[in-house]
Amino acid sequence: MFRNESEFVRWLRRLVPAEGGSVRLGIGDDAAWVNVGRGQELILTTDLSVEGVHFTRALHPPRSVGHRALARSLSDIAAMGGTARFALVSLGISPHTTQNWIEECYAGLIALARQHRVRVVGGDTAVVFGSAILDVMVTGEVPRGKAILRSGARPGHELFVSGTLGLSALGLRLLKRGVHVPSFRRSAPSCAPTIPTSSECIRAHLYPEPQCALGRFLEEKRLASALIDISDGLSTDLGRLCEASGVGARIWADRIPRAEIPAASRLHGGEGLERALHGGEDYQLLFTVAPGKTSKIPSHFRGLPLRPIGEIRSPKELLLVGMNGRETTLRAGGYDHFQNQ
Amino acid sequence: MFRNESEFVRWLRRLVPAEGGSVRLGIGDDAAWVNVGRGQELILTTDLSVEGVHFTRALHPPRSVGHRALARSLSDIAAMGGTARFALVSLGISPHTTQNWIEECYAGLIALARQHRVRVVGGDTAVVFGSAILDVMVTGEVPRGKAILRSGARPGHELFVSGTLGLSALGLRLLKRGVHVPSFRRSAPSCAPTIPTSSECIRAHLYPEPQCALGRFLEEKRLASALIDISDGLSTDLGRLCEASGVGARIWADRIPRAEIPAASRLHGGEGLERALHGGEDYQLLFTVAPGKTSKIPSHFRGLPLRPIGEIRSPKELLLVGMNGRETTLRAGGYDHFQNQ
Repeated sequence: MFRNESEFVRWLRRLVPAEGGSVRLGIGDDAAWVNVGRGQELILTTDLSVEGVHFTRALHPPRSVGHRALARSLSDIAAMGGTARFALVSLGISPHTTQNWIEECYAGLIALARQHRVRVVGGDTAVVFGSAILDVMVTGEVPRGKAILRSGARPGHELFVSGTLGLSALGLRLLKRGVHVPSFRRSAPSCAPTIPTSSECIRAHLYPEPQCALGRFLEEKRLASALIDISDGLSTDLGRLCEASGVGARIWADRIPRAEIPAASRLHGGEGLERALHGGEDYQLLFTVAPGKTSKIPSHFRGLPLRPIGEIRSPKELLLVGMNGRETTLRAGGYDHFQNQ
Repeated sequence: MFRNESEFVRWLRRLVPAEGGSVRLGIGDDAAWVNVGRGQELILTTDLSVEGVHFTRALHPPRSVGHRALARSLSDIAAMGGTARFALVSLGISPHTTQNWIEECYAGLIALARQHRVRVVGGDTAVVFGSAILDVMVTGEVPRGKAILRSGARPGHELFVSGTLGLSALGLRLLKRGVHVPSFRRSAPSCAPTIPTSSECIRAHLYPEPQCALGRFLEEKRLASALIDISDGLSTDLGRLCEASGVGARIWADRIPRAEIPAASRLHGGEGLERALHGGEDYQLLFTVAPGKTSKIPSHFRGLPLRPIGEIRSPKELLLVGMNGRETTLRAGGYDHFQNQ
C-alpha cells in the first residue's frame, strides 16, 4: 500500500498531468483551478458508487469499477446536452483495499476520461469502515441557455431511445452465473446486435459507454425537447422525464430495442422485454422530439441506432402497449436506494 | 425514513430552491446547470467526511457533521483566494441512519451554505454498509489568473496565520471527556481569546468557521504570495506549502497563537503548543507575504487576528525556534489516511 497520502498524490500526479490546456492547476493544491470556455455555462453532477450496491469485489474487476463510476457522471452530462470537462474523484478505501486495486480502479477511470477528453483535476481519499466507495464529480459546459432538460416534453412529441436496452442487466446475469469476464477492451462497439454474444453483454455491463457524442449532437442540432439518460431502467427514467414535464407517455413493447439471451450462453428463461424496461445501467439516452423535427433524427448516429418507441400524451400516466396490442400501466421497476435500505 | 428517493429529492428541493439567480436549474434533473461570472475562472474541490474518521455518532451531532463537511470544502476555496458558489452533496447512509439524522445533517450544511451564499445544487445518495459518508464538492470562482497557490512562497517572505490554533483539538478533547455540547449557534465569533471557554473550544470543533472573507481579501488586495488552509495541523500544512514552493521555513513557538486549556474545564496536562502545531481542523489560513507588503497586513481582519509567525528560507527544512530559543526540526504531526489504514 502507498506509505502515505503524499506518495499516493505523487503517484496520481504522474498519471494525470497537473497543468496544461484548460487546467491551470490540477491535483496538488487546496483545490483545482480551471478555465471555462467563453459563452459557456456550467453543468455539475456527482455519482456515488458503493461496494455491495453498485459493484462487488467478486464480479467487478477494479478497472470496471473506475470505468463505471466515471461513466455514470459522464452520462449525466450527456443527458443535459453538455460537454464533460473536468472530474474530481473521492475514494473511500476499506481496510482490505490493496494498492493494486486502487491503481487498477484509477486506470479504468482515467482510460475512459482520456477517451472523452475529460481531465481528472482533484479529489479526496479516506479510509472507510465497510463498503469501499467512489464518488465522481464531473463538470461540463454547455453554450449559454442551451442545456436540454427533462422538463421540455409536450403532448404530441415523439419518444426516442438510443442503442439496445437490457444488455447490462443481461451481462450482470451472465457474470453471476460465472461466465468468463472478457479482458478489457477500450473501444467497445456502441451498437449492439439484437442477439448479442455473452462477451458483448458482459462488456456492456463492466465497461458501459456513456453517450457523450449523441448528447452533444442533440444539443448542437436543437433536436431534443427533453432528454434523460437511462441509468435506472427505462420504466423509472421515462417516469422521471414525464413527471418533470408534467405529461404522460405511451410506448410500444415491440419497438423497444432489447437484447435477447445469447444462444451460446446456456441461460434459460428471463424476459428480454422485462430487462429492457427495468434493467438499468445501460446509459443510453431517452429523448423527445417535436413533430416538425422527427424527420431530422437519423436512424443511426455513429453506428448507434436511434429508435422511436412511443409518444408523449397529456394524461399523466405511463402506458405500455404489449405484443398482443393490449395497453397496461407501466410501473417503475428500477432500483431505489431508500426502498432497498 | 423517506419512503423512496423521490420523496427525499422532493424534501431536499423544498429546502434548497431549484432555480433563481445564478442557478438555472438545481436539484431534480440529470445534473445542475449554473452560471459562471464573466472573466472568472473555476475553483473545484471535494472533501470526503467519514463516520469513525472525521466524525462519530457519539460526539458529533448531525448538524455539526453537515456543517463540518461543507466547512472543509469552503476552506479549500478560501485557500485559493476564491469565492465559493455551488455545492454538490453525496450522502452515503448506513442502514442505521434515521430520517432525523439526515434532516439535521442537511440543516447544518445548508445553514452554513446560506451564511456564505453558496447554493446546494445537487448530489447523490446511496446506502453504504459500514461508515456513513458525506462527500461535499464545491465550485468557486476567482478572477482570471488570480488564484493564490501554495507554490508562491519565496525566501524572505514572512509567514502569517489567522486566528487561534489548537482550539478544535481542545474542543474534541473536551467532548471526549464528556463536557456538555453547547446548542448550535450560527454566528460563532471568529476571533477566539487565548484562554477560551470550554464552550468556545467545543464550538470551534463542532462548527468551525471557514475563513472565506479573509481568502477573498487576500486575493483582492494581492497580499499573499502563497496560501493554504490549516486543515491537518500547522506542521503538516506548512510542510505542504514549503514543498510546493521548493523552500523551507522557520517559525517561532512564542509567536504561534494558541489556545490554552480553559481554567474551568478540569482538564490537566496537554500542551497548547503541541495542539497548535499538530492539532488540525482549525481551518485557519496560513499565508506568506513578500517583504514590501507586510506592512499592509492588518493586525486584525474583521475581528480575526493575523499574526506573523515566521519566515520563508531557502534551505528546504522546517525549523521551530522553541520558547528557550533553541532550534529544532519541525516534523509533520497531522493525520494521514494511508498511515492510519
